[in-house]
Amino acid sequence: MYKTIAALALILALPAFAQPNEQRLIDHILTSSQGYETLAYLTDEIGPRLSGSRNAELAVRWTTQRFRDWGIDVRNERVMVPHWVRGEERGRLVSHNDQKLFVTALGGSVATPAAGITADVIEVSSYEQLAELGAAGKVKGKIVLYNLPMDMQLIESGRAFDAYSKAVVFRGIGASRAAEQGAVAAVVRSVASGSLRTPHTGSMRYLDEVPKKIPAAAVSTEDADFMHRLLAKGQRVRLNLVITPRMLPEVESANVIAEIRGSERPDEIVLIGGHLDSWDLGTGAIDNGSGVSMVMETMRVLKELGIRPKRTIRAVLFMNEENGLRGGKKYFENAAKREELHRHVAVIETDAGAAPPVGFISTLEGANLERVQARMRVLSRIAPMYFESSQHTGADTSPLTDAGIPGFGLIPNPRHYFDYHHTPADTLDKVDPKALAQNTAALAALAYVLAEGGL
Amino acid sequence: MYKTIAALALILALPAFAQPNEQRLIDHILTSSQGYETLAYLTDEIGPRLSGSRNAELAVRWTTQRFRDWGIDVRNERVMVPHWVRGEERGRLVSHNDQKLFVTALGGSVATPAAGITADVIEVSSYEQLAELGAAGKVKGKIVLYNLPMDMQLIESGRAFDAYSKAVVFRGIGASRAAEQGAVAAVVRSVASGSLRTPHTGSMRYLDEVPKKIPAAAVSTEDADFMHRLLAKGQRVRLNLVITPRMLPEVESANVIAEIRGSERPDEIVLIGGHLDSWDLGTGAIDNGSGVSMVMETMRVLKELGIRPKRTIRAVLFMNEENGLRGGKKYFENAAKREELHRHVAVIETDAGAAPPVGFISTLEGANLERVQARMRVLSRIAPMYFESSQHTGADTSPLTDAGIPGFGLIPNPRHYFDYHHTPADTLDKVDPKALAQNTAALAALAYVLAEGGL
Repeated sequence: MYKTIAALALILALPAFAQPNEQRLIDHILTSSQGYETLAYLTDEIGPRLSGSRNAELAVRWTTQRFRDWGIDVRNERVMVPHWVRGEERGRLVSHNDQKLFVTALGGSVATPAAGITADVIEVSSYEQLAELGAAGKVKGKIVLYNLPMDMQLIESGRAFDAYSKAVVFRGIGASRAAEQGAVAAVVRSVASGSLRTPHTGSMRYLDEVPKKIPAAAVSTEDADFMHRLLAKGQRVRLNLVITPRMLPEVESANVIAEIRGSERPDEIVLIGGHLDSWDLGTGAIDNGSGVSMVMETMRVLKELGIRPKRTIRAVLFMNEENGLRGGKKYFENAAKREELHRHVAVIETDAGAAPPVGFISTLEGANLERVQARMRVLSRIAPMYFESSQHTGADTSPLTDAGIPGFGLIPNPRHYFDYHHTPADTLDKVDPKALAQNTAALAALAYVLAEGGL
Repeated sequence: MYKTIAALALILALPAFAQPNEQRLIDHILTSSQGYETLAYLTDEIGPRLSGSRNAELAVRWTTQRFRDWGIDVRNERVMVPHWVRGEERGRLVSHNDQKLFVTALGGSVATPAAGITADVIEVSSYEQLAELGAAGKVKGKIVLYNLPMDMQLIESGRAFDAYSKAVVFRGIGASRAAEQGAVAAVVRSVASGSLRTPHTGSMRYLDEVPKKIPAAAVSTEDADFMHRLLAKGQRVRLNLVITPRMLPEVESANVIAEIRGSERPDEIVLIGGHLDSWDLGTGAIDNGSGVSMVMETMRVLKELGIRPKRTIRAVLFMNEENGLRGGKKYFENAAKREELHRHVAVIETDAGAAPPVGFISTLEGANLERVQARMRVLSRIAPMYFESSQHTGADTSPLTDAGIPGFGLIPNPRHYFDYHHTPADTLDKVDPKALAQNTAALAALAYVLAEGGL
């Protein structure tokens, strides 16, 4: 009894400045985050930031200068990136009254001739089906329509990223697989949980073992449904597809790396990162201006509050996540060269939007993850947040986590993420400043705790 | 007691064919409507049906033939319509890194020069504000941005059409009002309750008293918000707007008029109608392929079931509701010439989409409307449906209701109507076959009851 009262008295007597730093960070960020201003600059003033573009370079320069303005050590890590530029894009069903389809080239695709490719459409929803039809000689000379809708039940139940993984299998290598069977082009149903005739772009690549490169585009879910209905009625569907992208020579770009050196164990690094590049259609507010803003604001607030944890916190704005992962790979390569990999204690990636935060995923499992979770009860000041094991916690940091470094990924509510993902609708108005601050607070708190020794 | 039992016995003894016809109609349509097939043909096989286009003529021919195939008397009523064709359309903020805006020309607009108009943007949210700024000389040489968001609270509370009326005031004559103050172009925030960077078109007209015609376009809500943010920061916003529509010579087109003559009072007419034309961006599934389908299916089912009410039921598919109302006006003009107006007992218009039905609006009031409502309890077989007084029950039938003929308008749930309205996303996938059948059943039941004397 006496002990309890004494303990209570002690707690009540604690002066305000004795608040744990993670709590100070959270409260400060929730009340006075400037992260939305950072995001607004990236999106409204700079705009889309596709690798190799002038805008991507503007973003490297501006974010570097911001860190410098805040008095934070910053450097650029050079990396060569692809420079793919979108051209014209249009589609029409010449078999059906020349009706217009809403298409967009997939990143990395080759072009059609200027007048386009005109061919009959054949629809598949699996590679098995493609192979069967191919074996029957039915794919030769055709345009393959990959038409697998997202699993909306998974999305409604909070598993939007799983739904994405299931549906996105055709975007990356679907063109090569179709070419293997003799197809002349591939169109992929947009991986979308919502659509207003909105095609979603994304990266594709050509398989080395398939020498024939055919053009690849996404079509809106409405247009995939349209072609499906016609084909289901047994009609011949003939599509004219025009896309005129070009792959220009590679360009030198950079990762932006900022650091607050640890007070006791500066050689040990907690990395927080997100990608600075974006697709070219929208302004990359959600993907991934918001992640950049969270990472930058975490650093700014640490500096502003004079909080210097025992370990070093290193912020990395990776270049070229969207169509090459060159930045993530280069960071790993250089860290390995410097024999610095083992000094990475943990990495936290944020590249899942800025809806209100719901949890963290981590490569840690069992008791290891439970210990972190127990240490992070402070997150309840923001929202109820889970910790869940996952093999994949982020693309840019995947070389690091693949090498065994513990990884974390911040997860905002993913319900509507794939309404906007890789579309022109990924714009600032989709981001709620309050939810952005909540995510930033969660990121900052976890980074601080890990850097203070909580792992 | 005896009387009750006798009545009950009588009811139980009623053979199935003694069901009231309105109930038969509802049950038949709910279980075996072919309306979705009609709608699918109009949208998938024909596509957009803007007045003056080849597609609009295809739609006239096809719907006429369908009535004929069903053994229903049908004729075409000639009407001259405008022939406006959309050209290129693009916008970019030259002041802000050449960022792309998502724009679409308003129907009827004149073109910009091929290189576009480049000017500073001035934002207003009312005509009063425009006049004030104009008086201060601040509009001259500018592009006026009309930026009044839809009232989402009204929309959430079931009053989407009221929200539309409030927000749409700038689309029609905003260009002329801006020109009056010296503006060089007008851009109007899309009247939208949802957006994925989606501009909404719609008709505009030039006021006779303002000789200067300036180009008028809609911008997506995202782009209106974008420009608003920049202007609110005090920045100069400079827009390059390119739209190249053309107004071609008028074209002869037609209303499609089908009739089932009344068995006892064939000279008395209950008119059911909706417009056959659509905007050019989507396939007009919601606006108004669905209304056309409801009207046509009502007639088909009446014929199929051999139901011939006392009064004549006349179906009218009006041409050119979207950008001229020529069909509605011509129908009225000809009816007046034939001295037929007084023979119209009631008109029912359907032009509000195909979400599940929630009610009817009517120009009738008080006891008159209550009588109809009491007679229509059978609608509860479909859904709870209200009857509500309104001065405006439909555009095409407005000349008739303005002349005092009782009007009705079918109201599907309007919550998401303005997500799709006048956009490329107005496509067949947005229509649920079951909800379409529910609307058709409601329309058929009301038409039958009114034609049987229920007014």
